[in-house]
Amino acid sequence: MRPNPAAPRGARHEVRRLRERAAYDRASVHAVLDAGFLAHVAFAVDGQPFVIPMLYAREGDAVLLHGSIASRLMRTLADGVPAALSVAHVDGLVLARSHFHHSVNYRSAVCFGTARAVDDADAKSAALARFVDAIVPGRAAESRSGDRNELAATALMRFEIDDASAKARSGGPKDDPADRDLPVWAGVVPTHVAYGIPEPDENGAAFAPPESVRRLIQGAAQP
Amino acid sequence: MRPNPAAPRGARHEVRRLRERAAYDRASVHAVLDAGFLAHVAFAVDGQPFVIPMLYAREGDAVLLHGSIASRLMRTLADGVPAALSVAHVDGLVLARSHFHHSVNYRSAVCFGTARAVDDADAKSAALARFVDAIVPGRAAESRSGDRNELAATALMRFEIDDASAKARSGGPKDDPADRDLPVWAGVVPTHVAYGIPEPDENGAAFAPPESVRRLIQGAAQP
Repeated sequence: MRPNPAAPRGARHEVRRLRERAAYDRASVHAVLDAGFLAHVAFAVDGQPFVIPMLYAREGDAVLLHGSIASRLMRTLADGVPAALSVAHVDGLVLARSHFHHSVNYRSAVCFGTARAVDDADAKSAALARFVDAIVPGRAAESRSGDRNELAATALMRFEIDDASAKARSGGPKDDPADRDLPVWAGVVPTHVAYGIPEPDENGAAFAPPESVRRLIQGAAQP
Repeated sequence: MRPNPAAPRGARHEVRRLRERAAYDRASVHAVLDAGFLAHVAFAVDGQPFVIPMLYAREGDAVLLHGSIASRLMRTLADGVPAALSVAHVDGLVLARSHFHHSVNYRSAVCFGTARAVDDADAKSAALARFVDAIVPGRAAESRSGDRNELAATALMRFEIDDASAKARSGGPKDDPADRDLPVWAGVVPTHVAYGIPEPDENGAAFAPPESVRRLIQGAAQP
């Protein structure tokens, strides 16, 4: 990732709309990536764009992606074609007095770069643990690492972030002054990801939910 | 959208991995689209892919998108370049006994087609109401429609779905038989979008949260 506190004019990652919502520093981009585990990865084949939801985990200035080695799209992506990756988190529904000013509060990041297949078994094993911890922090230490066959069946890609931008909206609706006295409730409905009661499978029922799950659910508890 | 209960072999929307999770019928694709309001839209300019999170609303076999008329990317997209669009909802975290079998439960749809700018003021006004109702069903009727200036400032795009596929995973972890007796909790942690206490802005505090918000929050209540 290039150190770019501001994107050069005309750069592919320059945010042109609502520039005040944009950030180009590493910490802003990393914070968005680290808050999720599902990215939408885009690339083109002969001008035809594809976009695929994929599990990911960040490692430094790279995004690790995984899929099956049997996937044609994975092979295309791993060939190092130009790629882009988007992650977005919705934080609230912004209800204005007019249709036009309705919006959502969000944090998002768009990254540009290329992906390369990683064949090293140790790297694959470490990456599998990262994917698990991206879904539930601390879970990797509670479960079995990948064995030789599993690592052979895992296609690991390392997407190097060359350029990236983060964007966020927060706060209430920005209604027109003329609308401020309309007799309409306006404000924000905060949203977050919530967790239901953990559902053990048949053999899992013999154990209490593990520490990782307890922490996840407690951490997500809202006032 | 072409009536395609099965994707032709080699078609761009054919799901090649885990085919048993795929569906190509209209109802399956529409159900995924109707459950959300945030899509990731991809297209390419001279081989460089872009992917952007955008608010959307479905209308028949089209996805309505909106942005600002000042956006260069919006203009490119509205020129009818080949585009793809992905929507994904996470329903649960699948915790297996091995790293390899960790997964998430999800519903997703990938649509292929092209977008075109829509300039008609009535169509724009109706679309704004759809965007609002996609965020909170019933909210459009509670707030003011777009006026002439707002409609002029709204770039509406109609993305016609030519091909699409839906994909879903549900159920528990698929552990290896050899792992079934490991002393590890395994199962699913259900996830859903939850809503915090509505936060009225300064003038909105004079009113109780509207019917649309009350229904949204009640509908999301989990056991």
